[in-house]
Amino acid sequence: MKLATLRRGDTTVAVRVNDNAATVIDGYIDLSELLANPDWRAVADSANGEAIDLNGADYAPVVPRPGKIICVGLNYANHIKEMGRELPEFPTLFAKFREALTGPYDDVVVPAYAAAALDWEGELAFVIGKTAYQVSESDAEDYIAGYSVMNDYTMRDYQYRTLQWDQGKTFEASSGFGPVLTTTDAYTFGGKLETRLDGELMQTTTTDDLVFTPAKLVEYISHIVTLQVGDVVITGTPGGVGHARKPEVYIQDGQTVEVTIEGLGSVRNKTIVK
Amino acid sequence: MKLATLRRGDTTVAVRVNDNAATVIDGYIDLSELLANPDWRAVADSANGEAIDLNGADYAPVVPRPGKIICVGLNYANHIKEMGRELPEFPTLFAKFREALTGPYDDVVVPAYAAAALDWEGELAFVIGKTAYQVSESDAEDYIAGYSVMNDYTMRDYQYRTLQWDQGKTFEASSGFGPVLTTTDAYTFGGKLETRLDGELMQTTTTDDLVFTPAKLVEYISHIVTLQVGDVVITGTPGGVGHARKPEVYIQDGQTVEVTIEGLGSVRNKTIVK
Repeated sequence: MKLATLRRGDTTVAVRVNDNAATVIDGYIDLSELLANPDWRAVADSANGEAIDLNGADYAPVVPRPGKIICVGLNYANHIKEMGRELPEFPTLFAKFREALTGPYDDVVVPAYAAAALDWEGELAFVIGKTAYQVSESDAEDYIAGYSVMNDYTMRDYQYRTLQWDQGKTFEASSGFGPVLTTTDAYTFGGKLETRLDGELMQTTTTDDLVFTPAKLVEYISHIVTLQVGDVVITGTPGGVGHARKPEVYIQDGQTVEVTIEGLGSVRNKTIVK
Repeated sequence: MKLATLRRGDTTVAVRVNDNAATVIDGYIDLSELLANPDWRAVADSANGEAIDLNGADYAPVVPRPGKIICVGLNYANHIKEMGRELPEFPTLFAKFREALTGPYDDVVVPAYAAAALDWEGELAFVIGKTAYQVSESDAEDYIAGYSVMNDYTMRDYQYRTLQWDQGKTFEASSGFGPVLTTTDAYTFGGKLETRLDGELMQTTTTDDLVFTPAKLVEYISHIVTLQVGDVVITGTPGGVGHARKPEVYIQDGQTVEVTIEGLGSVRNKTIVK
């Protein structure tokens, strides 16, 4: 099953997506609200609200109001090895705030003072579907609602102003998220991830190269803090970011970044500097 | 004016605090909900609900459901200078999730796997009272609802497992927060901060030694991301943490950490390892 949050006038609606049409899930303004209902799967599956043509639909961030967004760094084995590093014993975790999210096809408007070193990070995201505290890896899949795509859009200059990355990772309305949430039962983990800048391939990997899989991350994080329904984890980016190129390549005014994960779809956001 | 969130049975209430009594602010379950009303100052000031004796009252985290908690590192000038470092050009920012908050007098229950290197960080917290985006330092005070006290309780082993600190800063129900929110008009910035471990003084400073004041932090952060009403910023800790002592001193099972800020009160939490 694929689910989305669509903008309609001044509000949004949660929908179930089938090919080019969507069915409104009446009573839920977005997937954050839907997931808060423990029966969300059955509610979504049996919804029979208004049909919406998806051509020209206005997608909101797929889960627009997560209580937290946990980001994982340095998580693709090939990229770590090609950099000559050892595989890590523990995941590197940092945070993005919900205000950093934007729709999967929205323009990313960047103030000029923050536009010096804009970079892409194509990532597999997963969303929590059941409250998780001290959950084991073997049980973890039960706690995942589904998967989606995020561009962990990064201001490299802010990221490296201090030792802590968070401030470069959470700029207002910068991280395209969506277009849909593909539920766990409908997704085979391991598909290809590709990031393109104005159509040119910049990152490519298979997502099964993750050192810390979604199940391992649920185990690790849930032994620190409760993962709530609707929380989002983004699992890290593979090699090929602009900052690591020689010379560096940064996103310029008017350029479009597209992140595609096989089986999950694409986010595609144009950057506007002003 | 001083405000708090008190636990009563299975719920909580927002209250206005006067000496040893509190007045319930009817219609608001906690300060997160109260602050969401743009007229919160007038509502709190004119509240005349039930009177509650504060002796034996059960305090919840003073603002229990912030959308985000932004932590500042390396922010006390004396401590930075005594370490032989230059004053920083930019604030170091990281994150704590709301699940890490606990009441100002609650026990902090730590799972044994996380108890190897428990440390205190007494900090001045401030809470946002009006939505702030791209606000200047000179206007910043208008956007601050008030001040409070937090122990930025830290698992040092988790903090230093990777380069990013967040995972050591956000353990479930570990950071005592409160006891009250003292509104901006009732607080003179600069009072003394003291942290005690089982009564022994471990940290002491005046809060006006901050490199980045609350007003500067509102300016800096709000040029990255919108600060929403009820968001919390904790402003960093002075010298005297256990991890920096030779030999290191960590909080042991049964020990109590008390953080006091002149004019704002104390949080006092006993650690229980199990």
